[in-house]
Amino acid sequence: MYGLISQLKAQAGQREALLVLLLKSLGAMPGCRSYVVARDEADADALWITEIWDDQVSHDASLTLPPVQETIARARPLIAGFGTRVVTTPLGGIGLTLGEGHDPPHATRGTTR
Amino acid sequence: MYGLISQLKAQAGQREALLVLLLKSLGAMPGCRSYVVARDEADADALWITEIWDDQVSHDASLTLPPVQETIARARPLIAGFGTRVVTTPLGGIGLTLGEGHDPPHATRGTTR
Repeated sequence: MYGLISQLKAQAGQREALLVLLLKSLGAMPGCRSYVVARDEADADALWITEIWDDQVSHDASLTLPPVQETIARARPLIAGFGTRVVTTPLGGIGLTLGEGHDPPHATRGTTR
Repeated sequence: MYGLISQLKAQAGQREALLVLLLKSLGAMPGCRSYVVARDEADADALWITEIWDDQVSHDASLTLPPVQETIARARPLIAGFGTRVVTTPLGGIGLTLGEGHDPPHATRGTTR
């Protein structure tokens, strides 16, 4: 699996507009196991996106999907900059949506795949 | 919802042992919507835990569960310290396991709850 933990900084006063845009645009993305948008409780302009994908290839491919490209174009003027960005290898846990049929159901909890 | 994004630093050479311990101990935790354990790709001793709970009360209550307390006791000698810790308010997305019946199914994708 391939994971990203990213902090985004919205333009002043634009965080809620950016959050709504990101949430409304979430649709089917092949290989996406988790994609959560959250407010940063310590910074009124910041939000976090945590993503888990089958692999980096599926993440990179998602960026070419027309709805994703449209969201990026709409989001750009609301974004002031980027903060922390961490690349991870998720190993398992709770709340991992199954990918495109690569893995058996037991892979969604407590595995070391 | 209540979210935590936490970096842990393992004692030198103990990251895999810590990861295995954390993954094996994952069981039913009331109010837990997502709990993912991942390697940090930029730091050989670091790992990340990303958690999403119905609310802070359910998170705090989980720390009193006997299996969780046992895991904490076993993990402590493997942990060198703690890095980034972010408290978030997750708003929606993909891969949010339903909580304890508080929410309709559509709350798992693209909501602004």
